[in-house]
Amino acid sequence: MKTPLKIAIAGVGTVGGGVVKALTARREQLAERAERRLDVVAVSARDRGKSRAADISGFEWVDDPIALANSGADVVVELIGGEEGVARALVEAALTAGKHVVTANKALLAHHGARLAAMAEERGLALKFEAAAAGGIPIVKALRESLIAHGVVSVRGILNGTCNYILTNMEKTERDFADVLKEAQDLGYAEADPALDIGGGDTAHKLAILSSLAFGTAPDLENMHVEGIEHITTDDIGYAREFGYRIKLLGVARRIDGGIEQRVQPAMVRAGTPLADVDGAFNAVSVNAGEAGPFFFEGRGAGEGPTASAVIADLVDIALGSFEPAFGKPARTLAPLKPAEPGAASAAYYLRFEVLDLPGVLAEIAGHLAESRVSIESMLQRGRSPGEPVSIVMITHETPQIAVANALKVIATSDKVLAPPRMIPMEAG
Amino acid sequence: MKTPLKIAIAGVGTVGGGVVKALTARREQLAERAERRLDVVAVSARDRGKSRAADISGFEWVDDPIALANSGADVVVELIGGEEGVARALVEAALTAGKHVVTANKALLAHHGARLAAMAEERGLALKFEAAAAGGIPIVKALRESLIAHGVVSVRGILNGTCNYILTNMEKTERDFADVLKEAQDLGYAEADPALDIGGGDTAHKLAILSSLAFGTAPDLENMHVEGIEHITTDDIGYAREFGYRIKLLGVARRIDGGIEQRVQPAMVRAGTPLADVDGAFNAVSVNAGEAGPFFFEGRGAGEGPTASAVIADLVDIALGSFEPAFGKPARTLAPLKPAEPGAASAAYYLRFEVLDLPGVLAEIAGHLAESRVSIESMLQRGRSPGEPVSIVMITHETPQIAVANALKVIATSDKVLAPPRMIPMEAG
Repeated sequence: MKTPLKIAIAGVGTVGGGVVKALTARREQLAERAERRLDVVAVSARDRGKSRAADISGFEWVDDPIALANSGADVVVELIGGEEGVARALVEAALTAGKHVVTANKALLAHHGARLAAMAEERGLALKFEAAAAGGIPIVKALRESLIAHGVVSVRGILNGTCNYILTNMEKTERDFADVLKEAQDLGYAEADPALDIGGGDTAHKLAILSSLAFGTAPDLENMHVEGIEHITTDDIGYAREFGYRIKLLGVARRIDGGIEQRVQPAMVRAGTPLADVDGAFNAVSVNAGEAGPFFFEGRGAGEGPTASAVIADLVDIALGSFEPAFGKPARTLAPLKPAEPGAASAAYYLRFEVLDLPGVLAEIAGHLAESRVSIESMLQRGRSPGEPVSIVMITHETPQIAVANALKVIATSDKVLAPPRMIPMEAG
Repeated sequence: MKTPLKIAIAGVGTVGGGVVKALTARREQLAERAERRLDVVAVSARDRGKSRAADISGFEWVDDPIALANSGADVVVELIGGEEGVARALVEAALTAGKHVVTANKALLAHHGARLAAMAEERGLALKFEAAAAGGIPIVKALRESLIAHGVVSVRGILNGTCNYILTNMEKTERDFADVLKEAQDLGYAEADPALDIGGGDTAHKLAILSSLAFGTAPDLENMHVEGIEHITTDDIGYAREFGYRIKLLGVARRIDGGIEQRVQPAMVRAGTPLADVDGAFNAVSVNAGEAGPFFFEGRGAGEGPTASAVIADLVDIALGSFEPAFGKPARTLAPLKPAEPGAASAAYYLRFEVLDLPGVLAEIAGHLAESRVSIESMLQRGRSPGEPVSIVMITHETPQIAVANALKVIATSDKVLAPPRMIPMEAG
């Protein structure tokens, strides 16, 4: 058997602790799979004295995580997080010092992935990040190594468990966004500062990684439309249900007309399809792999077990010397992403207008839509209260996004329209 | 760039042709991923003159496929099929001659997998078979390399597209098994000799492979209960629907009490769960990976595109020198499978009795079930025709399988019972 793989871990919270626990509990089985022992040799974290479920007393403690780059380890596992600061400095220092890197840091990879991949590659090192995209789901490996023969057409994913938990609970309990978010925070399912999750930023980071793996382009956060779930109302969820849909925050990347469209936004997904049925804190990814057909992957998106599982799979690959370029092809061949024409996408859309219930308002809206050649498949207006605010909901036929957006711009200027119209794309699922 | 990987292909039918087409159409992209060209150099098939969608005129033609083992290739792709004969001889000859092997041959691997893995390993060669288990779904890689940290508890799969197509169509059209099978044969979805598919044998081969990867044991077809779908009636499907279930042919392997249970049989899967919703010719695999949680994978189980996708992923791994032991750990460590105690499994069961509608028949059946401590959750009897045959259907509470089987043995001897009672386990999905 080869010499043990020596591992240094920066960040020993839930995930780091889970890695330590599984490496200990399954020591022999993992050594058999890796053909050598996987030995943690050093750790670093913010608070040495904190009580932890994992026993770290046998490992060297290093106060400054960046010093792990110069420890006796072969691999540095970065579980600190954040696109800059200590995490970035550690990963760069580790690669510079000739250490392999495993990271769960989606923000870092979305911002600096191509550069870090090049750094690793020049030195013959691994940069691995299965845990960064959809928790325990082995979608990074699947896109990098498996679904490569025919070229990927689209990747669509539910990539943020917090958002999916909130949307699922809004639907189940008919309570509003703020109320369910508060509960999620109390239960520890949402961060005290939830902006990165609910604003779509976390999904955007993960989508940038998946998009890069799928299309062979450098991760790109610039050419991406990002919306969160803050504006979703219980009314929207109720209407979705009536039309046979559920609202999910999706990250979508797909080829359109020679470019690539990337967007993060709430979408209506047809009920009964695999994506629509993804509940609670689960993640899922649906891939259209061209002639290889559609694929669907589902699993836990976060938490100790799933994330540790992904980190350990990366460590075993490194132990076996079985690693490929970080994004599936040499870093120098990662082309800049060529964005699809803005608005090139077309879909059916859900539209919600908050209007004053006055004669002529519907005619005005319908008129503007017709001018932009947006045709309506169905319409709902609940109750009547002349002179009062009322909701009008429409589902369009498939229409270029740009046409709908243009019509809404005009409609929004009407003095009978009380709030910016809502527009949510419908997805087949 | 390294020298091209030279590939010889035995069998240029649908799958082999698909491999040739994709290697040609995506030559540059694949060379980028593989860091070298993937060049087909020789092919062999039964009929040289046959008209093919793929152009094979540029490759050396070899009449005797076994001679490919001694061609100039680095890898032999075996797409002939069958557990013995030419396929086995070719794979053994190729490994002996120092060639890597990629195969889609589930029968060969289920019967001789451990031995072939050892042959490959001793010579430092790859033996790869992503296409052998669930078509295009990268489940072989996922079990071998990704879901390894915590130990797999169970693998359950819809692994045969022909059976799933037949069951789905029986449900949709309410036509009987023979009728739908005939149609599937006419449409080319079922073989002229469908025994291996509908009898469960093909699912058994695939399950043996997945079970080996999941549990680190040698593939084992002996310790496996195998039933097909021939006995499923439209009545069974109708009753399933009434109880909120759909009937699927599942391959199930799971740890029970220190042993491993392997079975292939029709099961009632709760409607609305991912496995129940797998339609038509799709395959799906559900993995309980312990603390890493449940995973669900779905994709096309057969056909040109999906199977070629799996074969090409294996070829790229070989081109990169990125391959691990065939079943995820050294062949010498593949322990013999220790079977679970027969009947150790417990589940709720669907039971159907064909009986003479005579006074006392229900009491007799209920009495025998009670003696074996099988308790009934619900019962259905449609119509009454005194003195005539009638169906009685029951769903049990969760019960040890052995208890139900024992009760049915006694019940089957009654002269009022006209056919062997049917017993189908219920699965949560």
